[in-house]
Amino acid sequence: MNAQQLYEQIRRKQSFLCVGLDSDVSKLPAHLQREPHPMLTFNKAIVNATAPYAVAYKPNVAFYEACGAAGWVQLEQTVRYIRRRYPSMLIIADAKRGDIGNTSRLYAEAFFGKMDVDAVTLSPYMGRDTVQPFLEYAGRWAVLLALTSNPSASDFELMPTGASGEMLYERVLKTSMTWGNTDNTMYVVGATKAEMLSNIRRIAPEHFLLVPGVGEQGGSLGEVAKHGMNSRCGLLVSSSRAIIFADSSENFASAAGKKAREMQQQMAGHLR
Amino acid sequence: MNAQQLYEQIRRKQSFLCVGLDSDVSKLPAHLQREPHPMLTFNKAIVNATAPYAVAYKPNVAFYEACGAAGWVQLEQTVRYIRRRYPSMLIIADAKRGDIGNTSRLYAEAFFGKMDVDAVTLSPYMGRDTVQPFLEYAGRWAVLLALTSNPSASDFELMPTGASGEMLYERVLKTSMTWGNTDNTMYVVGATKAEMLSNIRRIAPEHFLLVPGVGEQGGSLGEVAKHGMNSRCGLLVSSSRAIIFADSSENFASAAGKKAREMQQQMAGHLR
Repeated sequence: MNAQQLYEQIRRKQSFLCVGLDSDVSKLPAHLQREPHPMLTFNKAIVNATAPYAVAYKPNVAFYEACGAAGWVQLEQTVRYIRRRYPSMLIIADAKRGDIGNTSRLYAEAFFGKMDVDAVTLSPYMGRDTVQPFLEYAGRWAVLLALTSNPSASDFELMPTGASGEMLYERVLKTSMTWGNTDNTMYVVGATKAEMLSNIRRIAPEHFLLVPGVGEQGGSLGEVAKHGMNSRCGLLVSSSRAIIFADSSENFASAAGKKAREMQQQMAGHLR
Repeated sequence: MNAQQLYEQIRRKQSFLCVGLDSDVSKLPAHLQREPHPMLTFNKAIVNATAPYAVAYKPNVAFYEACGAAGWVQLEQTVRYIRRRYPSMLIIADAKRGDIGNTSRLYAEAFFGKMDVDAVTLSPYMGRDTVQPFLEYAGRWAVLLALTSNPSASDFELMPTGASGEMLYERVLKTSMTWGNTDNTMYVVGATKAEMLSNIRRIAPEHFLLVPGVGEQGGSLGEVAKHGMNSRCGLLVSSSRAIIFADSSENFASAAGKKAREMQQQMAGHLR
C-alpha cells in the first residue's frame, strides 16, 4: 500500500485510527483465558468490531513473544486473519527492530515476506544499513522511531547535537528522509509531545506520522490533529488499551467497537 | 551470573569467547536441511563441539524469528539445551529490543522469565525506562548497544552532542552507567572500531564489553585485547560465521570446535 492508497482509505472511512493489538494475555477477559488461542480469539473479535472505524492495526510483537512460540503463532494467525478478511487494512508490526545489514535483511523477510505485514517499526540508533533492507520491498513501510512518547525519550532523543544544536530526533528525521521516500517511510511521534509535531511537520511535511499515546498516555487528539495534520491527513493515530480493554466482560468486543466509533467520529471532525 | 562469576569462568577456561548462534537455516549443512528441527540439531552439535572453548553463547533472535513459530521453538529449545547441559555458560539473546516501560517489562519477562537467558541486547534510543525493567532481574544482564560494528554506525552513534561535543555513543555510555552497575550492564562495542576501545575503557573501566565482528567483520583479536581488556578481562569476544560455518559438510561440528579452539588459544595468550 502506498501513501495515496492509505490516504484514500482514510478519506473513505473518515478515520485515521490505528488500533493497537497489544493483547496482553493477562488482561484478556476471563472467559477467554480458557481458550486454546486466547489472543487470537480476542483479536478476531476486536478486529471485527472495530474494522469499520479503523484503517490500520498495530500488534506490538512483545505481547506475543511473551507467550513464546504459541504467542508467535497467534500473531501470525492474527495477521493472516486481517489480511484475508480486510485486505485494504494497513498492518503494522510494532517490533522496534534494527540490526546490522544481513540481519536486518532477515528481519525484513520475516515480517514482510513470511508474516506479510505492511509495515514494521524500527529503531534508528544503528543507522542507515539497519533500515535499508526494509525499504527494498515495494509497497511496504519502515516506521522509524523519531520522538517517542515515554518519559525517558528525553535521555537521548531530545539531546542537542552538532554545531546546529538540533535535537537527535530532528537529525534522525532529516538524515533518514534521504534514505527512502514518502511511500516507504513513516515516523513514530508520541502524542505526549504534540507541541513538537509542528516542528516535525516543518521537517517532514509529507511523511505519514504514526502517533501512539492518544488517550492512554495523555495525548489529545485535537492537539495532534492541529499540529500534525497535512493536506493528505498524514497521520495514523494509534490507540490500544483505551479501545481493546474498554470492557473486560463478555461484551469486550462491542465496547471496543463503540470506543473505536467514538474516536472515528472525532477524527471525522478533524478531516473536514 | 554476576561479573565475578563470569570472570571466574573466563579464567578457568582461559577464554573469553562467545559463540554467535546465528544459525541461518539457509546456510546449514545440506544433510541437516531435511531434519524436522534443523537449527536445533545444528546448534546442539555446535554447542557440544565448542563448549570447552567458550564461556558464552549468543543466538541472534532474527535468525529464529525468520522461521516464524517453528524458529521460536528451536530458539527456546536451544537455550534449554545449553542451560541444562552447560549450566555455567552465559546465554545472551541478541534481540536489540527496547520499548516503552510496560512493554519492555514484557520483553524482560519473555527473555529472562520464560526463555531463561542470562542477557539481552537492547537499543538505547528510547532512554532509561526502556532498559530499567531488564535491570530488575538479579543475576541477569542488559547489554546496551553503544558503538556497533556496522558501517552506518557513523550516522548517529558518532554524532557529536551537546556543548562538550561528546559523541552519542559516549553519552549513551555515561548516561546509562548511572542506571545499573557492573553486575547487570554490559555494552556492545564493535571490533571494527578497536581504536575507540581505549576511549570506551576510560569511560567504563569496569564494565564487560561484548565485542562482535572479530574475524568476519574485519576486527582483530589482538587489537581488541590491547585496547579493551581490563584487570578482570572485561571482554566477551563474539564470533559467529567464522566458527559455526567453518565447514558446510557433515564435519561441520568438528570444524567449528577446531576453530573455537584456535580462538581460545589466542585468547589464552592475551589472558596471561
